[in-house]
Amino acid sequence: MNSFFWFRLLHCRKTLIDRNVIPLARFFYSSNRYTQVKSSLNKKLDYRLKRKDHFEKKNRERISTYLYNMASPEIEKELAPLRAAVKEYGDLIRSLKENGASKTDVDRAVVELKARKKKLEERELALVPKNVSFFDRLKFEDLLKQRFFYDQSFAIYGGVTGLYDFGPMGCAMKANMINLWRNHFVLEENMLEVDCSVLTPETVLKASGHVDRFSDWMVKDLKTGECFRADHLIKNFAEKVCEDMKTPASVKEELKEVLMKLEGFSDADMHSVIMKHNIKSPITGNELSEPIAFNLMFPTVIGPTGDFKAYLRPETAQGIFVNFKRLLEFNQGKLPFAAAQIGSGFRNEISPRQGLIRLREFTMCEIEHFVDPSDKSHKRFEQVKDYNLILFSGCNQMDGAPAQKVSIGDAVTKKLVANETLGYYMVRVHKYLLRVGVDPDRLRFRQHLANEMAHYACDCWDAEILTSYGWIECVGVADRACYDLSQHSKATGEKLVAEKVLSEPKIVQVIEAVPNKAAIGKIYKTEAKQIFARLEQLSPEEVETLEKQIASAGNARLQCGDKEVKLQKNYITVKRYEKKVHTEEFYPSVIEPSFGIGRIMYSVLEHSFRQREGDEQRVYFALRPIVAPIKCSVLPISANPRFEPIMAAVRTELAKFFVSYKQDDSSGSLGRRYARTDAIGIPFGITVDFESESEPWTVTLRYSITMEQIRLKVSDVGKTIADLSSERMSWSEAQQIYPKFEQKSGA
Amino acid sequence: MNSFFWFRLLHCRKTLIDRNVIPLARFFYSSNRYTQVKSSLNKKLDYRLKRKDHFEKKNRERISTYLYNMASPEIEKELAPLRAAVKEYGDLIRSLKENGASKTDVDRAVVELKARKKKLEERELALVPKNVSFFDRLKFEDLLKQRFFYDQSFAIYGGVTGLYDFGPMGCAMKANMINLWRNHFVLEENMLEVDCSVLTPETVLKASGHVDRFSDWMVKDLKTGECFRADHLIKNFAEKVCEDMKTPASVKEELKEVLMKLEGFSDADMHSVIMKHNIKSPITGNELSEPIAFNLMFPTVIGPTGDFKAYLRPETAQGIFVNFKRLLEFNQGKLPFAAAQIGSGFRNEISPRQGLIRLREFTMCEIEHFVDPSDKSHKRFEQVKDYNLILFSGCNQMDGAPAQKVSIGDAVTKKLVANETLGYYMVRVHKYLLRVGVDPDRLRFRQHLANEMAHYACDCWDAEILTSYGWIECVGVADRACYDLSQHSKATGEKLVAEKVLSEPKIVQVIEAVPNKAAIGKIYKTEAKQIFARLEQLSPEEVETLEKQIASAGNARLQCGDKEVKLQKNYITVKRYEKKVHTEEFYPSVIEPSFGIGRIMYSVLEHSFRQREGDEQRVYFALRPIVAPIKCSVLPISANPRFEPIMAAVRTELAKFFVSYKQDDSSGSLGRRYARTDAIGIPFGITVDFESESEPWTVTLRYSITMEQIRLKVSDVGKTIADLSSERMSWSEAQQIYPKFEQKSGA
Repeated sequence: MNSFFWFRLLHCRKTLIDRNVIPLARFFYSSNRYTQVKSSLNKKLDYRLKRKDHFEKKNRERISTYLYNMASPEIEKELAPLRAAVKEYGDLIRSLKENGASKTDVDRAVVELKARKKKLEERELALVPKNVSFFDRLKFEDLLKQRFFYDQSFAIYGGVTGLYDFGPMGCAMKANMINLWRNHFVLEENMLEVDCSVLTPETVLKASGHVDRFSDWMVKDLKTGECFRADHLIKNFAEKVCEDMKTPASVKEELKEVLMKLEGFSDADMHSVIMKHNIKSPITGNELSEPIAFNLMFPTVIGPTGDFKAYLRPETAQGIFVNFKRLLEFNQGKLPFAAAQIGSGFRNEISPRQGLIRLREFTMCEIEHFVDPSDKSHKRFEQVKDYNLILFSGCNQMDGAPAQKVSIGDAVTKKLVANETLGYYMVRVHKYLLRVGVDPDRLRFRQHLANEMAHYACDCWDAEILTSYGWIECVGVADRACYDLSQHSKATGEKLVAEKVLSEPKIVQVIEAVPNKAAIGKIYKTEAKQIFARLEQLSPEEVETLEKQIASAGNARLQCGDKEVKLQKNYITVKRYEKKVHTEEFYPSVIEPSFGIGRIMYSVLEHSFRQREGDEQRVYFALRPIVAPIKCSVLPISANPRFEPIMAAVRTELAKFFVSYKQDDSSGSLGRRYARTDAIGIPFGITVDFESESEPWTVTLRYSITMEQIRLKVSDVGKTIADLSSERMSWSEAQQIYPKFEQKSGA
Repeated sequence: MNSFFWFRLLHCRKTLIDRNVIPLARFFYSSNRYTQVKSSLNKKLDYRLKRKDHFEKKNRERISTYLYNMASPEIEKELAPLRAAVKEYGDLIRSLKENGASKTDVDRAVVELKARKKKLEERELALVPKNVSFFDRLKFEDLLKQRFFYDQSFAIYGGVTGLYDFGPMGCAMKANMINLWRNHFVLEENMLEVDCSVLTPETVLKASGHVDRFSDWMVKDLKTGECFRADHLIKNFAEKVCEDMKTPASVKEELKEVLMKLEGFSDADMHSVIMKHNIKSPITGNELSEPIAFNLMFPTVIGPTGDFKAYLRPETAQGIFVNFKRLLEFNQGKLPFAAAQIGSGFRNEISPRQGLIRLREFTMCEIEHFVDPSDKSHKRFEQVKDYNLILFSGCNQMDGAPAQKVSIGDAVTKKLVANETLGYYMVRVHKYLLRVGVDPDRLRFRQHLANEMAHYACDCWDAEILTSYGWIECVGVADRACYDLSQHSKATGEKLVAEKVLSEPKIVQVIEAVPNKAAIGKIYKTEAKQIFARLEQLSPEEVETLEKQIASAGNARLQCGDKEVKLQKNYITVKRYEKKVHTEEFYPSVIEPSFGIGRIMYSVLEHSFRQREGDEQRVYFALRPIVAPIKCSVLPISANPRFEPIMAAVRTELAKFFVSYKQDDSSGSLGRRYARTDAIGIPFGITVDFESESEPWTVTLRYSITMEQIRLKVSDVGKTIADLSSERMSWSEAQQIYPKFEQKSGA
């Protein structure tokens, strides 16, 4: 793993991407009332570094990186020396490694690198202009709660952290986002969608590595039993102590170093910090236990005996892997193909906060694209190669350089992105996020550094979205290689492989360990099948090792799933021969885009939260019609019963095209009723007024974002709003077809 | 509960529905090749009673009731005396009860009634004609497995009973069924859809009654620990012994009585049968334990401490009830309104079998319609009152009478169905089931008998669908009264009530237990709030009881959630006064239609399974376009590359309208490729042939059920198939617009 880390570093250096990137538009907020702020912020630097702003402290670092994308020339000038200082150490580390320096030297250099990175980030944070940091989360959360987009589950029972219920608005919006996902990926890319069980036997998750590795370190209050995530506890402690004026400089230095290294700490490292600084429970002041690995999966048992252990799945991916054979067969044995799954995942977080961003139960959409590892090209890559993405590569992160706008074609050619398939999916992910309403200026792809990556992955890019919590990872796009399929193969003895025809047949030297089935079967009975399968899977080297062991010791040990079996001399015969083969079996690699729907939804809501100019109390969501929970409102200009036949005709038209609507015939003024429907993100408003009655009946149609109106026939209403809502037609196209309507009194 | 049972019986008698029911069409199987069989089956009676037919024995009784709907006059004549014999005892029991006969007499009569019912059912079973019982489940299951509609989960790990994975075909079909459900109910009825957590704290399920009552009795093998459902074990044992020629008549008699009474057995009853007949484990022959209550919920824990107990929800309904306040507020305080939820439910069945019919993890769609208990009318009932349903009422079941076709208007007027809202939903459920493709002749509503109903329900009708497993309950439509809301109110102290304005104000005598907040707060601290809420909820009678207890003993006990609190004399003051009130608070009643999507899907697949006439190997699914997993196939008549531009134009048109398609350009004959797409239920097939090339490009469009074809322009293809798939247009309408196409060679 470590060698891989260094490989990447060196590799990055050689393929450093073109610096002539297209300069980005400055802080761009279309159609909302955030004021543009001049960049004369320097004077306020010190003040802003100290003040409590809208962001939580722990997220500052992430927010600051926003500037990488957006900085103006003057800001760039100010940051340049800091960036150079970071780069100096990035370069130093590379050369140390190249010259085979000692681990101690390298580690020391890494500490300095991180310190310099931190200094850079702090300055950047200070430079973040007000229109990025301005966001009234309190008002925003109030609106979400009040209109029941979502809220904490079981609130009348005191609530449960990390669990949320979606109300009518949130539920409809989520369903729309999922439908769009299904159209955008499953339908447009011809994927095989599956729907697998949440309950997953322990053996399956043992094979996938989750039972052993899917955990966080926690410490317990030795008296009350209360639990804390060890890294969070240390972080909070260290930050607090560092802020304290009375803390000696030497302690501050030490704790700052702890903060920088914390992500890579082992349990022993954390324990020694806790002991050294005498960290206690922040609630009771009691002693704390040593760090204990806490597995994040929810345990349960299947069936009545209590001994069939299972977990709630922590991801939907495993359901696809265990069905690989059936799916390959369904696809008539051909690669590449992609399978997809939409469903719930469960993670028993130690102490979840941050609303929809860290949940114990959440909706995921995952794709597993299976591909020949020797050819990860994508047949539609050509169509997307000029598409630009903002990429924040591992190299840029190491160099203290900003993220860059790059065409995906260039990124793949320069090996910044590992292969075409990965690149193709990054583009598709980006397009999806824009379709649901993510602000493109607050969206980037960040490459995982080697120490962040799962041990089996060979490249991974997260789509990160900037919110008031900082940059949050909403979609991961990873090349998982063949890890999962080979793990499940080993555990079950099933060959989870694909086959390809060789361009020309080849002669291979075969070395086989042929089992004496009778002898093995007699001893191992039901397990024998697994042993035969294991023997079949052995590499030539493994067969030779077995042969040698038997020759010298009279028997050999073979790892077979969970167990080790002893092979006596007479159990196997080693055969050597030549064979002409026309096909080749191989474990497919898998490219995995994995979406957290709750996080994307949260980001979209934040990005579309608006206040009407001149009336800050009038808050609303400028949602894209395709994700809006309700597509239109139906409002009579007054509660007069003579409008009812027209209202009924409107409702019938809407129902014919499955358009969801909300009728509001309460007595409030039209303006007030518009405000109410705007608040829940209804994009279109139909009003029946006194003009409506002349034949043929007409109504006005209002677009909530611009508040412009047109007038159209009742018989056109269903079709038009269906087209506008599915975004087959834009508002400006509708304006070209239908006459403008000007309201007499403002609303 | 018992008194309620008798109330229903007497009540039914008075309101017995009109016998002039519309005679049903005889055994009707549209467009499939099942042969019509004459009713000269009598000779084979004895033979058929003994032979192993396609149905499992345990389902025979339920299948036989099919005849209730379908019987011809001659069959009716044969059954008449048996039915009269049943009715005689039904009447006797009523009169015994009316005259206050002893329990022993009534019980004896009930035993005889059941014996007569059984005799009737056996004769009916013998009369079931072949076209009902003919269904090749093996071929059917083969097709489902081979085309990966669904299959057992984790099969490569040996599989887990009760868990199924849906493959691409099953997953798409399920998604279509759910979308249609959302349109049919949520959209068309303006419901509030929510999406709540699966993880549910124990306290919530304690209040709902699931912790204490949601269980089955099981017995354990005392040596191996293997578990059996006690009732299933006894049933299998008794049936086997009864079939044995050597069993003495007296034992047979006894066991037959056990079989008849088994449903109502307590654990002690079952234990005594097990002891008396010395029943052992059917697998090992070992001794068995006493019956143990096994709770069917999957347990887990939330958070790291291990002491926050929770379960996976056994139904989605509770999520709606705990959100009642927010939903009522969202609806601006007005009743009636309906909330809906689509999601997973989990039940840890002791030994699930029967594929999708009994799952441990399943998709439910539930509606909770909240209504004023004093007015359960429905404003759209008038629109559906002439809609006919096949109703199998509790009375008919008691009388041995067949199910009857009745208009829902009559059924409600005659109090057969308890109220308009219940009736309205039964119609909507029926329409939905027909839209997804359930055969209307294999669909009925069966009323729960009093001893089957949940203790809180006041009327319940199951939509039952006839499959090869017998009649299976797919949708329950129950009037749950105000049970759930009042339970959660009691447990939390939150008032889960609605308010209504009285038609005129009234003077009420108020008796209140006013708490001495300071005194109670001092002692009970955080619990005080709950005590205040409880005191506010007390009925006048309860206040008076408290007052008396305090007067005599100096203090009183008050049940408050889980706990009992002691109220000292100085804690409360009882106040009496007159008050003029304009509004009234009340617990809403709830009408709950609850759908098992897997069961409905299974039934639809069974009802649409077909074999082509003259070619029994060519099996396929005649699915309705709206639920079909893939809407059309795209086939070039040959693999000639010159067709590619036309194929591309077709694909573009389909994508524009979000139409899912499957391209098959393999080298097989057109007929073979049609057969392959028919097999997975693709309703429409586009073929690009040599005529396609003349401008403007055209293609042929084939409908899989009738195999008829039309020819249309490529530019019309997307819109036409979108309309056909959403059933806005029927095939015969399309045939009127576009010219017929006759293929030269048959396919």
